[in-house]
Amino acid sequence: MAKKEKVLEITPRSEDFAQWYTDVILKNELVDYSPVKGFMTIRPYGYGIWENIQAAYDKRFKETGHKNMYFPLLIPESLLQKEAEHVEGFAPEVAWVTHGGNEELAERLAIRPTSETIICSMYSKWLKSWRELPYLYNQWCSVVRWEKSTRPFLRTAEFLWQEGHTLHETYDEAQEETLKMLGIYQEVAEEYLAIPMVVGKKSEKEKFAGAFSTYTMEALMHDGKALQSGTSHNLGQHFTKAFDITFTGREGDIEYPYHTSWGISTRLIGGLIMVHSDDNGLVLPPKIAPIQVVIIPVAQHKEGVLDKAYEIKAELEKEYRVEIDDSEGYSPGWKFNQWEMKGVPIRLEIGPRDIANNQVVIARRDGEEKTTLPMENLEENIKKLLDDIQQSLFDKALKAREEKTFIAKDMEEFSNTINATPGFIKAMWCGERECEDKIKEDTGATLRCIPFEQEDIGSTKCVCCSKEAKDMAYFARAY
Amino acid sequence: MAKKEKVLEITPRSEDFAQWYTDVILKNELVDYSPVKGFMTIRPYGYGIWENIQAAYDKRFKETGHKNMYFPLLIPESLLQKEAEHVEGFAPEVAWVTHGGNEELAERLAIRPTSETIICSMYSKWLKSWRELPYLYNQWCSVVRWEKSTRPFLRTAEFLWQEGHTLHETYDEAQEETLKMLGIYQEVAEEYLAIPMVVGKKSEKEKFAGAFSTYTMEALMHDGKALQSGTSHNLGQHFTKAFDITFTGREGDIEYPYHTSWGISTRLIGGLIMVHSDDNGLVLPPKIAPIQVVIIPVAQHKEGVLDKAYEIKAELEKEYRVEIDDSEGYSPGWKFNQWEMKGVPIRLEIGPRDIANNQVVIARRDGEEKTTLPMENLEENIKKLLDDIQQSLFDKALKAREEKTFIAKDMEEFSNTINATPGFIKAMWCGERECEDKIKEDTGATLRCIPFEQEDIGSTKCVCCSKEAKDMAYFARAY
Repeated sequence: MAKKEKVLEITPRSEDFAQWYTDVILKNELVDYSPVKGFMTIRPYGYGIWENIQAAYDKRFKETGHKNMYFPLLIPESLLQKEAEHVEGFAPEVAWVTHGGNEELAERLAIRPTSETIICSMYSKWLKSWRELPYLYNQWCSVVRWEKSTRPFLRTAEFLWQEGHTLHETYDEAQEETLKMLGIYQEVAEEYLAIPMVVGKKSEKEKFAGAFSTYTMEALMHDGKALQSGTSHNLGQHFTKAFDITFTGREGDIEYPYHTSWGISTRLIGGLIMVHSDDNGLVLPPKIAPIQVVIIPVAQHKEGVLDKAYEIKAELEKEYRVEIDDSEGYSPGWKFNQWEMKGVPIRLEIGPRDIANNQVVIARRDGEEKTTLPMENLEENIKKLLDDIQQSLFDKALKAREEKTFIAKDMEEFSNTINATPGFIKAMWCGERECEDKIKEDTGATLRCIPFEQEDIGSTKCVCCSKEAKDMAYFARAY
Repeated sequence: MAKKEKVLEITPRSEDFAQWYTDVILKNELVDYSPVKGFMTIRPYGYGIWENIQAAYDKRFKETGHKNMYFPLLIPESLLQKEAEHVEGFAPEVAWVTHGGNEELAERLAIRPTSETIICSMYSKWLKSWRELPYLYNQWCSVVRWEKSTRPFLRTAEFLWQEGHTLHETYDEAQEETLKMLGIYQEVAEEYLAIPMVVGKKSEKEKFAGAFSTYTMEALMHDGKALQSGTSHNLGQHFTKAFDITFTGREGDIEYPYHTSWGISTRLIGGLIMVHSDDNGLVLPPKIAPIQVVIIPVAQHKEGVLDKAYEIKAELEKEYRVEIDDSEGYSPGWKFNQWEMKGVPIRLEIGPRDIANNQVVIARRDGEEKTTLPMENLEENIKKLLDDIQQSLFDKALKAREEKTFIAKDMEEFSNTINATPGFIKAMWCGERECEDKIKEDTGATLRCIPFEQEDIGSTKCVCCSKEAKDMAYFARAY
């Protein structure tokens, strides 16, 4: 029964990245498929990660004055059609409700693919005066987009997200909000998820349907593909005019407010996995790990071992998320593998010899060597370790991204690089849609963003057409 | 501009209870209607209440070992039909998705009216051994039930709720869980929402579609009508057999687990309002009030007043949810009315005279007289006040319920009482559906529950048929 068996059965990452990803999420019970094609079930361990991500963002939203609210799941077709670009962008992927109870509806209702339209229809009713501005509201919910090809967390027909929807008196204030929320997205992604982000502006082609301008944070996955991880849109007055949202301004005149929206989703969990995890399974940053420390009693049948293990648990769980694995019928070695696969940042082993030496054995999931810690000041030392692991994961991810970030000055260099060593390509761009399209056609790479931090890459000519370039942009193949 | 105007415009409760309720929720911006009939928009102040209710329950669920997860929004029609009673109960009120993108679906998908079926289909795939039991999982989400006549919070086509879904090795364990969760429902409702609950078992007629037995907590509203406020179902093996959920038992045989589900919803907010609020608007118990203390500076243009007000706010908001109303153009009296309407438990006034006397003026929303508090130990004294308000609201609600709870020994007494003084009727019942139906037909009252606490009401005969009674039951007209 207590045989040492291999728990993992995870396809090596280098062998088949897509299969490795699927193995990691399914075998760790983060997620499962469901009876409805394209819809995923988020299992408790996966949902625990989401709750921690959600809590971190929600706290920052509230600290910056935003309040949550909830709008209807269903949107009348006529409402969805009010903003032209928007309906064009979303209509092909909408799920339609046509019957309620036993009756056919007079008008089809869309399950929200995003809520700009229904929220604007209510804002139009509510807003009266400049004194009420800004409107700083957010909604946590699920949305549905009828995708043909899906992958859990990365692209599914339904996903969980938040969508902020704000109104402002002036364009400048809306622009400030758009960038502030992008900043919060980046801050939490880097501090909690330990994922370094490139932030910048989307091209006209890649921007949100109905936006004035879209900003994004982009992460680089271990396989060299980019993941759009959060977007923040300055919607200008497109929607406020289409939905006739007006207010009485400071001078008594009727004005249209400026509008933003911004969202992050369960997609971040996919990014988390593809940045940090390895051939042994999940690697979770301490700040969002559902379990931060797992205690494994060694020779647990010996007197005093379980008592000591539970004593340590009681002490540590005042501050941390701790579990103890005292299941019977499994060897410590088997448990080590199991919890390594689950990505728990710290494994704490305690056996008779450790008790005699007044110490515990510590194994870090980020690959550092096993060490021992004295029983004294354990809580404090665990804190240091968790902080250290959090930082080391970020540092490692940043290093990996830098090693996979390249410069290309012409299309030959671009193609060769992205084929030989997939990653971010920094290249100059003239700003024309034609070049953007051609780059995609020739290389499969899309323009991820025009970063705020422009660099001198030793060229001022468009990588594609060689005309004078406007900006340096990041390109990559993307999820 | 600073004229003292009446803010309230709330229909008196005694004049038209339904209109009073609508006024309270709309004028306080808890909720609004939406472009889709029967669907409500929960505005930030209403959603803030829900977040506090949710946090209180979620904490208790987790403390008792439950974890959250998320299942798909949509359920294939074939899955919904697997448990016969269940489909019969829910099919008439399901919203159906028939098209995804531009294509008609091969099978209709129901927006979940509740998730037993889709969850069971996944549990069937996951569960292997008795060692994995119990399954203690919960989901926070929205559900849709196509209701013809709707009222915000009380009955809407979409509402927010949680649904716990657990599996157990034995019937006894499932029954224990069913009652434990009902106990937690009652505990949080009484401690946080300050709503006294009657708890007990539903009749066969009133139980959940597909349940072995349903337990409920019932509250009495100010108008004497009952509100079913949370239910907990022992589902026996109905669903586990229909969905072929099995596990290998301790003796190696294949067994069906026992199953529970339990839910509370945004309906609780409706109950909260109809129990505590009054002609001046909302009354919110401190523990779930989005704002616990509102600070109103008096003569705020005078030197030092605003500084002092902000100083107090900074001090108090370390522990409490505090707002300051320093808006211009409104008199203090107008603001007093405004915040009274919004149900904030404590109003703290601070003006030049108070500063000179090193004190603040306190007005309690629960109707006690205005008092002053010294500036010293303010935080501590506010804590006492909030605790006291919390308790006084519960006591008042309990007293109101007791005054509206009556005994009836025959149908004449039953009818006369419920017509003259609507409320709970305690009556003996033979256990037959026929009598239950007749009572409803004659009086409009339904059997709310057979309470755990049976009492001697001076009769042993069924109130309706006069045969030997089985139980004492609570009856009432209900929402």
